[in-house]
Amino acid sequence: MSDISPEQSAREQGLVDEVIASFAGTDDARLKTVMESLTRHLHAFLREVRLTEAEWNAGIRFLTDAGHITTETRQEFVLLSDTLGASMQVVGMNNPEHANATEATVFGPFFVDDAPEIARGEDMAFGALGEPCLVEGSVTDTEGNPIPGARIEVWEADEDGFYDVQYDDERTAARAHLFSDESGTYRFWGLFPTPYPIPDDGPVGAMLAATGRSPMRASHLHFMVTAPGFRTLVTHIFVRGDEQLEIGDSVFGVKESLIMDFSHYAPGTPTPDGHDVGGRGWAETRFDIVLAPGDGEGMRAAGS
Amino acid sequence: MSDISPEQSAREQGLVDEVIASFAGTDDARLKTVMESLTRHLHAFLREVRLTEAEWNAGIRFLTDAGHITTETRQEFVLLSDTLGASMQVVGMNNPEHANATEATVFGPFFVDDAPEIARGEDMAFGALGEPCLVEGSVTDTEGNPIPGARIEVWEADEDGFYDVQYDDERTAARAHLFSDESGTYRFWGLFPTPYPIPDDGPVGAMLAATGRSPMRASHLHFMVTAPGFRTLVTHIFVRGDEQLEIGDSVFGVKESLIMDFSHYAPGTPTPDGHDVGGRGWAETRFDIVLAPGDGEGMRAAGS
Repeated sequence: MSDISPEQSAREQGLVDEVIASFAGTDDARLKTVMESLTRHLHAFLREVRLTEAEWNAGIRFLTDAGHITTETRQEFVLLSDTLGASMQVVGMNNPEHANATEATVFGPFFVDDAPEIARGEDMAFGALGEPCLVEGSVTDTEGNPIPGARIEVWEADEDGFYDVQYDDERTAARAHLFSDESGTYRFWGLFPTPYPIPDDGPVGAMLAATGRSPMRASHLHFMVTAPGFRTLVTHIFVRGDEQLEIGDSVFGVKESLIMDFSHYAPGTPTPDGHDVGGRGWAETRFDIVLAPGDGEGMRAAGS
Repeated sequence: MSDISPEQSAREQGLVDEVIASFAGTDDARLKTVMESLTRHLHAFLREVRLTEAEWNAGIRFLTDAGHITTETRQEFVLLSDTLGASMQVVGMNNPEHANATEATVFGPFFVDDAPEIARGEDMAFGALGEPCLVEGSVTDTEGNPIPGARIEVWEADEDGFYDVQYDDERTAARAHLFSDESGTYRFWGLFPTPYPIPDDGPVGAMLAATGRSPMRASHLHFMVTAPGFRTLVTHIFVRGDEQLEIGDSVFGVKESLIMDFSHYAPGTPTPDGHDVGGRGWAETRFDIVLAPGDGEGMRAAGS
């Protein structure tokens, strides 16, 4: 930027000041703050890189394409936020670490309200394909006191990497909710998590390809846990040993504390609760959940 | 932000560093620079305002709505760029002032290729309604030498504030191109410029309303002037005395040097060239164009 004259620089800053001044009449003080900050940082970016007119046109085209590929079931702007780490930054700011409470990660676009309720030990796969996996653990407060009746939503992709909402039919599969019991414990059968790419046939996929980035998400199983008096926890568990943990999760959702050990058992091995796995091998993990205090109805965390 | 612990701040910066590192494998050095800078400034904005999850959701909704209202003839992302001053910043960086050359301003979304050619003194309104306006001037280099054969594209809104592309039919009106003559001068009949709102029934209009901003553009007439060996000039002329110049142009396109004096003549006043204005009053202005040296085929300036 050494070739920018002081006069040119002053003109550029003058424009920034003019745009900021245009928000002076904003009644909503918070909106005013956000728009002023957005303006400053947007212009700082443009000026730092000296964006060309061709690049500006490419940016408009990118946003237009993202808008046109976005539907009720495909959210390219969420993918953009996710792949730039913005979603995870918002999650982290709004769910700061609290004592030993379980850490939050991105919410993702695949949650569905009104997933079926299952009883303790039942199967949330509902026919979705994959290696059966027993998941159990406790729900406690940060002092280790059990939290009975916590609502635990779980959802995940099948072994092909697809969620039910990506199927061609209206099936509900690999999603359910259950409640922790009187001793604060829970147990369900699901699927051993599978790595999958975020939808990468749109502009975000093109951005990842152009920058040499993997579209793959590390294998994970989604949880959302709510209980009155506690901060809503939106998180995943990841699989220790998953090679995508080394390559990098495309949405920056991994936290070390969320990587779990899974055990695998050969076909024919009896399950501890007698659950019928149809002669297949199966897996098992444990995830103990610790909730931070809060207002109970915390917002869902952002992102994919 | 005084309540952000050093540990929390370090985690947030760590995420920024992780996202920037994800672009390390980008082959295109310019793309790498742009993505890294975009990441830094995006996260700086998020962290500065401590964006909430509800605000993040509102932002995703805004972009989604902008994408869905955008068509071949409606470009909400350009309006967004314009109303945040980004378009004008890009114009200013890529068309820096050069000696006494005429200043550039935003290109806008209403230019159409292949507008009809008119001869010197002909009418570019083609039936669009408004006060007839004689526009004349010279095209010279920065040393005052005439530039014959410069291609001059002109386009503007009618007295109701609409461009022909916003009409319900396929008419071409209030747009044309002509060439400067051997002495570097030009003259045409158009319409006295009218103020009009940018399309404000979408999310950008809602943003302007929420921030107390006017959607109106100051009255203007668009020019694009090209000649071999000169930088392409994309600009407007504005009308001295237009009250929107005081209120503020919604896309920050006004420069003092582009505000012109217009004379008005009562109905019945003969026109200097005998042009038939159908008994109406008419107006007149002069716009002398000075082109900077350049590669002739400069890119179009950005914005609305």
